[in-house]
Amino acid sequence: MSSTPSGDFYGIGLGPGDPELLTLKALRILDETDVVFVPKAGIKEESMALDIVRPLINGKTIIEKVFPMIKDQDKLKEFWLDAATAIKEELDKGKNVAFLTIGDSLTFSTYVYLLRCLKDMVPEEKIHTIPGITSFNAAASLFNIPLAQQNERIAIIPVPDDVEGLRPTLEDFDTVVLMKVAKRLDKVVALLEEMGLAETSVFASHIGLENAYATSDITTLKGSGKGYMSIIIVKKPAKR
Amino acid sequence: MSSTPSGDFYGIGLGPGDPELLTLKALRILDETDVVFVPKAGIKEESMALDIVRPLINGKTIIEKVFPMIKDQDKLKEFWLDAATAIKEELDKGKNVAFLTIGDSLTFSTYVYLLRCLKDMVPEEKIHTIPGITSFNAAASLFNIPLAQQNERIAIIPVPDDVEGLRPTLEDFDTVVLMKVAKRLDKVVALLEEMGLAETSVFASHIGLENAYATSDITTLKGSGKGYMSIIIVKKPAKR
Repeated sequence: MSSTPSGDFYGIGLGPGDPELLTLKALRILDETDVVFVPKAGIKEESMALDIVRPLINGKTIIEKVFPMIKDQDKLKEFWLDAATAIKEELDKGKNVAFLTIGDSLTFSTYVYLLRCLKDMVPEEKIHTIPGITSFNAAASLFNIPLAQQNERIAIIPVPDDVEGLRPTLEDFDTVVLMKVAKRLDKVVALLEEMGLAETSVFASHIGLENAYATSDITTLKGSGKGYMSIIIVKKPAKR
Repeated sequence: MSSTPSGDFYGIGLGPGDPELLTLKALRILDETDVVFVPKAGIKEESMALDIVRPLINGKTIIEKVFPMIKDQDKLKEFWLDAATAIKEELDKGKNVAFLTIGDSLTFSTYVYLLRCLKDMVPEEKIHTIPGITSFNAAASLFNIPLAQQNERIAIIPVPDDVEGLRPTLEDFDTVVLMKVAKRLDKVVALLEEMGLAETSVFASHIGLENAYATSDITTLKGSGKGYMSIIIVKKPAKR
């Protein structure tokens, strides 16, 4: 163990993209942080997270870490382990370290893998997660539609390759948030139409970003290729 | 229709209680707002929402509206209609109006009823909802536990009077957030124990408030009466 007093680690949820959806806490902690770790999908790509907070972290040490979009979990784990090790080094120097994530840090974020690696290296009391606004909370607000009221039940589910797998949840729950729609958009829209749920569904993509797109007529989306970075909220009419 | 140019209405999610979990957007809009409507449960009660932002709204016109904790929906609707009418009056004077809600405005918030009344009186483009951090996102952060990763599925459900009704969802979903536990806490804990899920469940109540309480050993909660304003997150171990 290092004799240097350890700094604190903060995993910060930045919200869905609009810099105004940062919390005051995220802002304060970024301000108090020495080193900011930023995830990005490829060496040449811009980090979306960095874009959101760039004006807020002038003068900080920014360390970009590439986490490639690959399926091989063991390979990917090496990247997270490498990032965790680099973070640990900074903490051992007594630096406060932030790691940026889009949306909420713990909701479908790859931060979860980093966290798992870090927990093996850093005492838990030094690890702080700051929640962020999720894409689906932002989308519901955009449309002024309730996610749930009273005793309604919400399901938040990634769309499986076979969209038929959505049917039981769509039948059972009052509100269903479909994540990771991507290339399955046309099939999802067809299923919702067939189930009579297209009219009560809304679609939003790239929320909070320049190329944001939202529609409450999801039938217009077929063939649009707009499924990437999108969500669909299926909201059944309230029982009263 | 009034000839006065109408002000704008903002339904603001304040987050779970910690004033630092307000978004920058909520802060800015409160600052630009003339009139702040605040819900409270009874005439003599303090408004929790008002407590969170009191230092931020000095000099604003604050209008408290009582929404009693009653089951009679028709009776309750009168209260919401009355609030919507009062808000409309201020908008017609050209004032910007905020309505405060705890957590996220559209997730199990009674704001939903107000919204429904307002939509009949005010053009939709004048109605803006600002999302807030939910109690369950804050709770997950408190424990550094993932709500979901990869293809995991989340259910967010109010606990029914007969807790047996939770069983299918607890069996089927990777993560289950139990809302409105209240007086059913002991029965919920017993069910989770019986299903072998107690060890992977965490409990938090009054998150972000002075009397906040959190534990990752839910078996200690039996007989505690701590179910009010609480949530339980049941997180099954990741499949890998």
